[in-house]
Amino acid sequence: MNSPDKIWTAGLVIVGDEILSGRTHDKNIAQVASWLQVQGIRLAEVRIVADDQDAIIEAVNALRKANDYLFTTGGIGPTHDDITVDAVAAALGVPVIIHEDARALLERYYADKGGLNEGRLRMARVPQGSELIPNRMSGAPGIRRGNVILMAGVPHITAGMLDALTGELEGGATLLTETVGCWTAESEVAGLLRETEQAHENCQIGSYPFFRDGKVGANFVIRSTSADDLQSCVDTLCDGLATNGYDFTPGGI
Amino acid sequence: MNSPDKIWTAGLVIVGDEILSGRTHDKNIAQVASWLQVQGIRLAEVRIVADDQDAIIEAVNALRKANDYLFTTGGIGPTHDDITVDAVAAALGVPVIIHEDARALLERYYADKGGLNEGRLRMARVPQGSELIPNRMSGAPGIRRGNVILMAGVPHITAGMLDALTGELEGGATLLTETVGCWTAESEVAGLLRETEQAHENCQIGSYPFFRDGKVGANFVIRSTSADDLQSCVDTLCDGLATNGYDFTPGGI
Repeated sequence: MNSPDKIWTAGLVIVGDEILSGRTHDKNIAQVASWLQVQGIRLAEVRIVADDQDAIIEAVNALRKANDYLFTTGGIGPTHDDITVDAVAAALGVPVIIHEDARALLERYYADKGGLNEGRLRMARVPQGSELIPNRMSGAPGIRRGNVILMAGVPHITAGMLDALTGELEGGATLLTETVGCWTAESEVAGLLRETEQAHENCQIGSYPFFRDGKVGANFVIRSTSADDLQSCVDTLCDGLATNGYDFTPGGI
Repeated sequence: MNSPDKIWTAGLVIVGDEILSGRTHDKNIAQVASWLQVQGIRLAEVRIVADDQDAIIEAVNALRKANDYLFTTGGIGPTHDDITVDAVAAALGVPVIIHEDARALLERYYADKGGLNEGRLRMARVPQGSELIPNRMSGAPGIRRGNVILMAGVPHITAGMLDALTGELEGGATLLTETVGCWTAESEVAGLLRETEQAHENCQIGSYPFFRDGKVGANFVIRSTSADDLQSCVDTLCDGLATNGYDFTPGGI
């Protein structure tokens, strides 16, 4: 059941030397963020940390205490650099155990691929008290222990795990957004944006400038959990832009 | 002068509701990370926080104390949601002042664009004691105060500021990497990877699996600050793969 008044938040810890080295371009932040919005949960902070136990523990504990949910991506595979399960178990103060359902899943998955070995069995290890998140892309499941959710780092596997979690988490009112685009330098209308936001206390306005086709423009994104407040704020902004002689594009440019 | 024995590290704080909402896909992490590697500085942690003064202050203080350098991207534009300068000044315990060179720059830049207004003048505000980082893409400069560096959030402007900083920061030995690709499930060679890393203490091996053309494969990335140690580790890994009957691709797949 949704509780519309409470704002539900999540933190995301991305475990990955490969992101910090610049070698791999992250694709999980945007997909986790977008998915959370639909669940009525706001992504409050992301931390990207190295494949280092102390760094993971610190980030997990900080973000799980500050938020309703804590997600991780990365570091739950079969190799020596996959240490997320151990770090999260340490953060939660529970031992790591072999989850028998995960072992059975992996035995079936690898039956015609050479069978379980030590590395593959690592993927059945979970913090004690966890349940599994189905992974329809490859054998190894994701892991959920209460409000702590461990997912794969490979984006299309992460996507499958998010799909399996859809509708499973309690959230609040969805944050609604409307975008208004304008071919103007945001610095020309900064005052209008500020005044419009101040006049609509349940709304935030973000201004996102761009350069395109040799011209400057900006998209103004208005956010609110109330559809009425949102519309009122959009109307005020559009009236203000029109009054000042600016063309604008509802829906954004 | 480079100090080869010290490992220089940086933290990066990305200020941006638009990233946390999933609306904008971050492009700055990878470009800052890659640029830092060339400067001999390792990106140790990234935090993405909302356009919220307390959240920015906390992230800035945590990462600047833990690292040699602290970079921020985003939130230094002309609109009401651009609060990075104020937050960083508060984190550093210094007042915000108008930087006269920045004001002069902006006056010239906007001379034929309607002139300075209140929003545009916001971009001349800096934490007291700062110097400016040239911005050849648009008027507003980046800001440097000691080891704290504030850059724009629009990726091609960020790129120009990084370019202006190239060679300006002290760093250590560059982290060298070699990649070996292999069309195998990483779970088949997890033991070999672990043993190879253990036998080469100045090297780390990361394993990055992928699915491509209907087949599983992985790239093994070996990292070291010593060219000799790196080559020795690559040789051991390739010998081990060959001995176990795996084809591999030097340079990665």
